[in-house]
Amino acid sequence: MAKKSRTYERFIEKVKEISYLNQALSMLRWDQETYMPPGTVNDRAKQVALLSGIVHERMTSKAMGRMLAELKKDRSLDEDQAVNVREFARDFKRATALPAALVKELSETESYSLDAWGKARKEMNYKKFEPWLDKTINLKCKVAEHIGYKDQPYDALLEEYEPMMPTKDVEAILTPFRKKLVPLVAKISKAAKEARVDESFLTGDFNVEAQRIFFTEIVKDMGYDFERGRLDVTTHPFTIGEALDVRITTRYNEKDLRPGLFSCIHEAGHGLYEQGTLAKNYHTPMGVAQSLGIHESQSRLWENVVGRGMPFWKYYLPRMQKAFPALCRVPLDLWHKAINMVRPSFIRVEADEVTYNLHILLRFELEREILEGKVKISEVPAVWNERMEKYLGIVPPDDVQGCLQDVHWAFGLVGYFPTYTLGNLLAAQLYDKVQTEMPGVEYGFAKGKFAPLLGWLRQKIHQHGRRYMYLDLCRKVTGSTIDEDHFINYLKKKYGPLFGVQL
Amino acid sequence: MAKKSRTYERFIEKVKEISYLNQALSMLRWDQETYMPPGTVNDRAKQVALLSGIVHERMTSKAMGRMLAELKKDRSLDEDQAVNVREFARDFKRATALPAALVKELSETESYSLDAWGKARKEMNYKKFEPWLDKTINLKCKVAEHIGYKDQPYDALLEEYEPMMPTKDVEAILTPFRKKLVPLVAKISKAAKEARVDESFLTGDFNVEAQRIFFTEIVKDMGYDFERGRLDVTTHPFTIGEALDVRITTRYNEKDLRPGLFSCIHEAGHGLYEQGTLAKNYHTPMGVAQSLGIHESQSRLWENVVGRGMPFWKYYLPRMQKAFPALCRVPLDLWHKAINMVRPSFIRVEADEVTYNLHILLRFELEREILEGKVKISEVPAVWNERMEKYLGIVPPDDVQGCLQDVHWAFGLVGYFPTYTLGNLLAAQLYDKVQTEMPGVEYGFAKGKFAPLLGWLRQKIHQHGRRYMYLDLCRKVTGSTIDEDHFINYLKKKYGPLFGVQL
Repeated sequence: MAKKSRTYERFIEKVKEISYLNQALSMLRWDQETYMPPGTVNDRAKQVALLSGIVHERMTSKAMGRMLAELKKDRSLDEDQAVNVREFARDFKRATALPAALVKELSETESYSLDAWGKARKEMNYKKFEPWLDKTINLKCKVAEHIGYKDQPYDALLEEYEPMMPTKDVEAILTPFRKKLVPLVAKISKAAKEARVDESFLTGDFNVEAQRIFFTEIVKDMGYDFERGRLDVTTHPFTIGEALDVRITTRYNEKDLRPGLFSCIHEAGHGLYEQGTLAKNYHTPMGVAQSLGIHESQSRLWENVVGRGMPFWKYYLPRMQKAFPALCRVPLDLWHKAINMVRPSFIRVEADEVTYNLHILLRFELEREILEGKVKISEVPAVWNERMEKYLGIVPPDDVQGCLQDVHWAFGLVGYFPTYTLGNLLAAQLYDKVQTEMPGVEYGFAKGKFAPLLGWLRQKIHQHGRRYMYLDLCRKVTGSTIDEDHFINYLKKKYGPLFGVQL
Repeated sequence: MAKKSRTYERFIEKVKEISYLNQALSMLRWDQETYMPPGTVNDRAKQVALLSGIVHERMTSKAMGRMLAELKKDRSLDEDQAVNVREFARDFKRATALPAALVKELSETESYSLDAWGKARKEMNYKKFEPWLDKTINLKCKVAEHIGYKDQPYDALLEEYEPMMPTKDVEAILTPFRKKLVPLVAKISKAAKEARVDESFLTGDFNVEAQRIFFTEIVKDMGYDFERGRLDVTTHPFTIGEALDVRITTRYNEKDLRPGLFSCIHEAGHGLYEQGTLAKNYHTPMGVAQSLGIHESQSRLWENVVGRGMPFWKYYLPRMQKAFPALCRVPLDLWHKAINMVRPSFIRVEADEVTYNLHILLRFELEREILEGKVKISEVPAVWNERMEKYLGIVPPDDVQGCLQDVHWAFGLVGYFPTYTLGNLLAAQLYDKVQTEMPGVEYGFAKGKFAPLLGWLRQKIHQHGRRYMYLDLCRKVTGSTIDEDHFINYLKKKYGPLFGVQL
């Protein structure tokens, strides 16, 4: 243990205070999406703005700047302490980089833009959103200039969600991936179609309370700790909080088990990551999850690799049949096939794991083309549709099922999308490693036992908090850099036999 | 409208910010009692402590002191503005009066004391709590010295809950009240006993979800606004929040409708008061409820005068019988008698409205005797039991049913109890006025119509926020000072006919 630096102690005290205030903010956001009375919206906005202001003030204070400057040079810090300084310094840099006027304009634009996006969707009229998307992109370019970048403006935006991951590195991963994926998607979806799988039982009447009870059991079995977490209902599922309070949400569909089921498993995957940091590091960067790409690797590993796998359903199908007797005659292999159906579709969040990444790649490419001026804002719908046809072979009948489907751009989230695919790729690569180090781990899934997998993830990933970046982590844990072939092979191995096709 | 004072504008801006932060704190407290995962306790305590510290800092800042000093002399303020200055100045004075070390000692003592109280109850051993009660009382004496008082230390404690209400004034009301109440309680409870009312139907199996639905309807009928409120479950029912977010809670007993039913009506009474301030005054003293005594007058008026009255049940009994078919053979007059049963009992919160105030008077007297050193801490159980025998004719079999029953003293709430009785007295006096100004208002209750009553309360009380103190308000609204005879006569008029006794 390093000798204790007085400055470090003061620094960590301030960092923890900021974390507690951020937790209070998370709480207010959680409440807003779950239980808040509808008429409270304006008051809540004021509370959040005020508290965010207090957090921003504390994060960017001169005293904080001085402490960071001193600590960056302090060679007496141990490794964990150095990580805390490095990571908080990055947050500090981003928080101080933007002039107050730009921050204000961004947040004002955000609410008008969200409103316009809603109207555009309602009226199926992209033109209503176009000027706001234009403004958002312009502001995001300004943000990039203030943050600074090496190669291209997109770098500065991407790094907010995926630190130390330049655009060209992401491109170097995703472009060859796309080239392999497009023909694979075509083959698998053709075979899936020809398999004429009976999917009729997937829709019906499924009591919501019975869903809640059953999904809660699954989430508990996975290891999600309800002593310091909750599962509630929101329109869009999410995970929020850290340390002793990590809450997940889902939505239930009375006619279809899948949305609730897989969003529960997905969010619990996120939740397990946040719950898996070490107690001694709580409320410091070492005690929270790193980037979105790593986060998504956890949620996707549980949702797709585990939760859509045969062993998982060997255990859970009989249990589900007890909870929902209408399913009692569905054989295991048919159920497994039906929940793994592959077909090109318009809506990203409803896409299967095979086609999903093409939705992302389309957005990743389009975002950069817009930023570089290669695609004009007015051309977005046309380019979107053309690319959909090229990658997935289908053309959205309208923009609500096309370029107006995601809230991200209206919300100012540019550079966010690629982290979904980075997560999917990492999940596959991690799982290959899991199988090497713990052969037969999936036999446990068939008994509802996930502790070995969770233990492995805890040890290799969760406990490290923000110690490693995406690529570091990948190398450290799997022994090599990210490689899309793990995911490609995962698809081939799973979907070839499933739909009887040579891949 | 007064000309706008620059200082006043700045002042109100700061006052509103403090209100928003306090609302965020209320939210955290609400969450803690309703949905917070159990393992989060320690983190939540840190969040609350930090945010409370920020609020305290802002409330007591030098700038705030300077603004208040200037505004107190500003003759250009209109009446509402002057109320805001006067009321915030009182909050400021209390907040600045206590040295930080004392505040810290109080809050530390509070948690140890609560813990000791819990243990003492579990082990039925007052001795475990005795040293902590002693310490609490000593600290409260110190608080009183710092706050300052005219006649006696109790003044300084009482004014936290009931401003501008000296102990001797409360005594001048409550002592004659007790002298009239003790013999009345004896007469009524004797008659009630002799009436041999069948109460068997009050206990049974009452589905909790059906309770929730039925009570929610009642609360809605009363006028409680769910657009800016909620009804949830907690161990101890309470009302929290202000302005656009006023939440109430209740508890359901599967075996007995009464706890849930009457706590819903009671808390909705509190909630209506907070929801009844004027939107233009939100987040300022003019936009929140005044003292606990006034607050309790509202909750008690709804709970007892309205909710335990015959007209109310004329409307709701048939509805309740639909929701709970087991009650379908209970005649209205029997139901009305059963829910108004009077009998001396040990536990304050379970007491009927006739005996209830004797529980309070006992505590009010005992608190002052302890503060004055007339009763030693070690003598509390004996004095308690002796007083119970004198006032109610019964002796608690143990201290859990005696002096250990309330959390208040463990929590440091000394001077709080008398506000319950002040509320009861005011409720009766207000209702007499209601009946003078709107004769036959109760015929509306028999049709589930409460808008005239609520409108009256809104206009006379709610809209004024913190404009009037307890006695001012009473005089302003009823035309005379508080007079216990309104309550005494209310009891005589209701319970004489009910149990066939001349009172």
